[in-house]
Amino acid sequence: MRKGVKFSVGIWSFGPTVERFCPSGYREDMPVEKRLEQASKIEGLGGIEYHYPQELSEKNVDKIKELSKSYGLKIVIVAPNLFSEPKWAKGALSASNEKTRKEAIQRVKAGIDLSKELGAAVCIWPGQDGYDYPFQVDYRAMWDRFTKSVKECAEHRTDVKIALEYKMGEPKTHILLATVGKTLNLIQEIGLNNLGVNVDFGHAFMAYENLAESIVLISRYNRLYHTHFNDSFAHFDDDMIVGTVHFWETLELLYWLQEVEYNGWYGLDLFPYREDPVKAVQQSIRNVEFMMDLLEKVDRKELREILEEGEATNMQLILRKMLGEKRIETK
Amino acid sequence: MRKGVKFSVGIWSFGPTVERFCPSGYREDMPVEKRLEQASKIEGLGGIEYHYPQELSEKNVDKIKELSKSYGLKIVIVAPNLFSEPKWAKGALSASNEKTRKEAIQRVKAGIDLSKELGAAVCIWPGQDGYDYPFQVDYRAMWDRFTKSVKECAEHRTDVKIALEYKMGEPKTHILLATVGKTLNLIQEIGLNNLGVNVDFGHAFMAYENLAESIVLISRYNRLYHTHFNDSFAHFDDDMIVGTVHFWETLELLYWLQEVEYNGWYGLDLFPYREDPVKAVQQSIRNVEFMMDLLEKVDRKELREILEEGEATNMQLILRKMLGEKRIETK
Amino acid sequence: MRKGVKFSVGIWSFGPTVERFCPSGYREDMPVEKRLEQASKIEGLGGIEYHYPQELSEKNVDKIKELSKSYGLKIVIVAPNLFSEPKWAKGALSASNEKTRKEAIQRVKAGIDLSKELGAAVCIWPGQDGYDYPFQVDYRAMWDRFTKSVKECAEHRTDVKIALEYKMGEPKTHILLATVGKTLNLIQEIGLNNLGVNVDFGHAFMAYENLAESIVLISRYNRLYHTHFNDSFAHFDDDMIVGTVHFWETLELLYWLQEVEYNGWYGLDLFPYREDPVKAVQQSIRNVEFMMDLLEKVDRKELREILEEGEATNMQLILRKMLGEKRIETK
Amino acid sequence: MRKGVKFSVGIWSFGPTVERFCPSGYREDMPVEKRLEQASKIEGLGGIEYHYPQELSEKNVDKIKELSKSYGLKIVIVAPNLFSEPKWAKGALSASNEKTRKEAIQRVKAGIDLSKELGAAVCIWPGQDGYDYPFQVDYRAMWDRFTKSVKECAEHRTDVKIALEYKMGEPKTHILLATVGKTLNLIQEIGLNNLGVNVDFGHAFMAYENLAESIVLISRYNRLYHTHFNDSFAHFDDDMIVGTVHFWETLELLYWLQEVEYNGWYGLDLFPYREDPVKAVQQSIRNVEFMMDLLEKVDRKELREILEEGEATNMQLILRKMLGEKRIETK
Repeated sequence: MRKGVKFSVGIWSFGPTVERFCPSGYREDMPVEKRLEQASKIEGLGGIEYHYPQELSEKNVDKIKELSKSYGLKIVIVAPNLFSEPKWAKGALSASNEKTRKEAIQRVKAGIDLSKELGAAVCIWPGQDGYDYPFQVDYRAMWDRFTKSVKECAEHRTDVKIALEYKMGEPKTHILLATVGKTLNLIQEIGLNNLGVNVDFGHAFMAYENLAESIVLISRYNRLYHTHFNDSFAHFDDDMIVGTVHFWETLELLYWLQEVEYNGWYGLDLFPYREDPVKAVQQSIRNVEFMMDLLEKVDRKELREILEEGEATNMQLILRKMLGEKRIETK
Repeated sequence: MRKGVKFSVGIWSFGPTVERFCPSGYREDMPVEKRLEQASKIEGLGGIEYHYPQELSEKNVDKIKELSKSYGLKIVIVAPNLFSEPKWAKGALSASNEKTRKEAIQRVKAGIDLSKELGAAVCIWPGQDGYDYPFQVDYRAMWDRFTKSVKECAEHRTDVKIALEYKMGEPKTHILLATVGKTLNLIQEIGLNNLGVNVDFGHAFMAYENLAESIVLISRYNRLYHTHFNDSFAHFDDDMIVGTVHFWETLELLYWLQEVEYNGWYGLDLFPYREDPVKAVQQSIRNVEFMMDLLEKVDRKELREILEEGEATNMQLILRKMLGEKRIETK
Repeated sequence: MRKGVKFSVGIWSFGPTVERFCPSGYREDMPVEKRLEQASKIEGLGGIEYHYPQELSEKNVDKIKELSKSYGLKIVIVAPNLFSEPKWAKGALSASNEKTRKEAIQRVKAGIDLSKELGAAVCIWPGQDGYDYPFQVDYRAMWDRFTKSVKECAEHRTDVKIALEYKMGEPKTHILLATVGKTLNLIQEIGLNNLGVNVDFGHAFMAYENLAESIVLISRYNRLYHTHFNDSFAHFDDDMIVGTVHFWETLELLYWLQEVEYNGWYGLDLFPYREDPVKAVQQSIRNVEFMMDLLEKVDRKELREILEEGEATNMQLILRKMLGEKRIETK
Repeated sequence: MRKGVKFSVGIWSFGPTVERFCPSGYREDMPVEKRLEQASKIEGLGGIEYHYPQELSEKNVDKIKELSKSYGLKIVIVAPNLFSEPKWAKGALSASNEKTRKEAIQRVKAGIDLSKELGAAVCIWPGQDGYDYPFQVDYRAMWDRFTKSVKECAEHRTDVKIALEYKMGEPKTHILLATVGKTLNLIQEIGLNNLGVNVDFGHAFMAYENLAESIVLISRYNRLYHTHFNDSFAHFDDDMIVGTVHFWETLELLYWLQEVEYNGWYGLDLFPYREDPVKAVQQSIRNVEFMMDLLEKVDRKELREILEEGEATNMQLILRKMLGEKRIETK
């Protein structure tokens, strides 16, 4: 494993990758134990992320702990699942139905307790807390309920870090926690010290965010708790191999993760529909490691000076040098 | 049923609406017979569309014919399924693997034969004929294979109409048959008289097409064979209730369907993840019927004159009148 | 003028509407006095917005006040211009060049002073405070400078309201103050009581925001200071006639402006390149007034109940009734 | 100049780069002669593109020819300007006003004649042939007029090549000639041998086209007449330095230009609002040359084999090798 860089991956990346046009999935489903075995073949991988309770729960935690230890794959994230069951169709943490809302809060709290025991962080992705149609919901009541629920979850145990993961849409056409700005605003409003952000690259691209700017903005408040590396064509959350589309943005992100001294996990959140999952994860790690090698070819002082002057034409020489250009020239 | 307007719906609209974040689906699956019973409750519905061979095949065709007759729901479209099985992951009609490609062609031909027998049209949506990554495929070979395969299918029986359905992406990040222009270009190249287009509203919106312009352009060549009504927020193929987002565009589309004297089916292709399917289809029909009523409130001559002058400000008076404004004013 | 609703318009809407493909503009330029005369012809208009110092400054303020009074058109907004001169090309409030940055702050302060005198509010749109390329700027330093500058401006006079106007891009490919979330987050961080938001519809649409949700979210903090009505196809800031594209979203926005008891101006920010400006503004007002009439056709209690249950299919009946459907039916 | 690669640039790239928020432009305007002098400083540049009659016409052609010769900068493209004067606001080649339409056709014909004399090709970009609003125009009549006008222009002299340049929108919200597909379809319909395509990268990105696929598709019909290199963030036509955003897509495009044996000009269409134009063009050429060097690091046979199998994970090794990775590994 590369010094100072820790890679984790969502165990769901090894699943059948169901989508609506291929409801059977593109490959056979495997139990979590088998998926872990697959993950163990990947060089450079150090940790695994799980959904609670589907992939990791009180029921299988002992077995997973044991397997994790034997494979050298830490349990990094417990993500209480608030989206994959039909009961969340009208919302989870923001549901107008009180019973459903309490059930969602309860699931998060249980996930927090499990995380505490495992030394993992919690990730909340409120994918069903949104709406599909204009004139469908009462935004005011919904934001009130959502804010209160997140606060209640965060207060449950202030010694466990909770990373909020934002996304503009999918599965719903609109998700409340849509952008980096809305997430930071919510965190400021709640005002607790264990709430932070998980930046998913594809989600940021969907929202036309510049990835590097988003992580820098989060870091101004020391709230960058986790990352989800992947790539996409920005119209949707394609969850592709890292670096295959947004080459410059990913390289710039890696530079800024160093500048803000991020020391968390480099999490991989892939959904390799039509690729072999082990290969897709492995190549993502290779791409990131290689991009970090590229960054080392550049004189940081020189780079910072050009960023200070903001002159894009001058930066081109640096960027080509980063990719191996030998040519020496004046600007 | 409204005079001159025939509504059909895809039988898949009554399915479990699986998506990747809800792989079990939002409701229980039902056999096709049961789905037909559901469809029969919808006022104004006259026909049903099926995928071959999953929903309609040689095996159940007699039973479906019988049920269709009893419910008064014609079999309108047979759509050979080229996407929902993992074997199509690397393409169907354009696959570089010859065996796969021949299998795809064979399925389309069988679908055509079945259509012939039923007096239905065929719809081909080549959703897996595309690619996900830059530097993944040989575009030249792929377009050659795709063109040849479509030609072979169309030549199989020139007495069955084949409607090609375009879409920019999903499930793949890029689909070859992406836009109205690419589709018409392909049809011109192949040069057969039984190839036309099925315009899906959400697909057109994704491609930033103006729906009305697209159907007018297709109609210049007399190739508008079928329509798929739905709505979306244009970033993705949301398959929502008709008219709930693109109000003006849908109204304008209805106007132009009359102008080009379209006499085919008004097909509904919905995917009501979190809504009751019967209600979603029923309300779509109600919305379309109501919008057609609105169109009747306008003096066509006056409307055409403003379209001729192209003056958007003057058109606002007409549009408000269409929605019931009584105010009389000079421009 | 409609009871309780006050319309204003940006005086720039009557300008030559220059764009890069028509650098001469689509019509002749007119002095501000002449533009005011044009505005005075518009029924229902009550106020005007100006850029400082190009359209309104210490030099012409007395004359404009006099004319405003004679036309009955209040001076509503003073917007210090931080974008239209080449000196802002590398940023204004966030510029790394200290002299430029101080000049920007100074302009805002002078605009605030003028606003105070006129009883107007201030609108800051930091259109050049952003960047064009990946690896072009130091995001950390830029956000620090920007935050400090906005704070210094807001502290200049806490008795004048400053509305921050966000936009994702244009003229730069990326603007720091991109979304509703980033704006609210900045306001929370600065913590002063005279900083709020001006929501421009086209800007919100570009960022895939639901307009109504955005204004509700802002209103949770009592920070909705101003609005900029217009319309667009969401890919860019088209500044079109209100209600011509996003029909439902605009209607929903009007509903929620009532629900949050907004009592500020309904500002019109149009850029009618190829339309007559007087007509474009007049028809925008007519469209809004008509849409407010439509809203009155609905039983609010019934509407709120459906919003509470979040059932989009049931809402369709209400929406059609709003547009005049007489049909009575059970859901 | 690199063997086999010829770079040209639009003379407009050295203009004041006016945009609506900076109507004075970001720099002073310069006469064409002065712009040519600027262009002459750029290493590797071999040709210039002009708008007719603003930048090149019967009036200055002798002087420009002489200067061109002295600088060694060929006259490559004559682009009849159909957009920058207010008279085209309601359309040029598609205008319903017959006088305007004939004037547009006349301008194109004059441009063709001038091109003939100069040995240049013609580029038609019909930027005003579209519409802004739903319910604004008669699409049927508009497409008829547009098709007839283009045909009449192409028939004027079949010995001059005419490259049609498509674009989805800007300045109008919708342009008729929006995509590669619509352009090829039009060319097939007209059926003349001197009509081809000019692919502008930013225009293709706006339409979610894969650049390489588009040029391959055009090349299937031998219609790739010209190229306009630039880059953008795909929401709009940013006309940025080549390769600064779409790194992989540009690299892939260069590969496919070689595969289809394109021997036309590598045209640069930049609009460097906030950059020095000479530097922006120079760095674009350097980036392209460097990317062509990168392509040479790869074994073409190996690359083609992976494209044939369509396996994205395997391609990552090749792509990293292209960027200098030394690591040897099995897939």
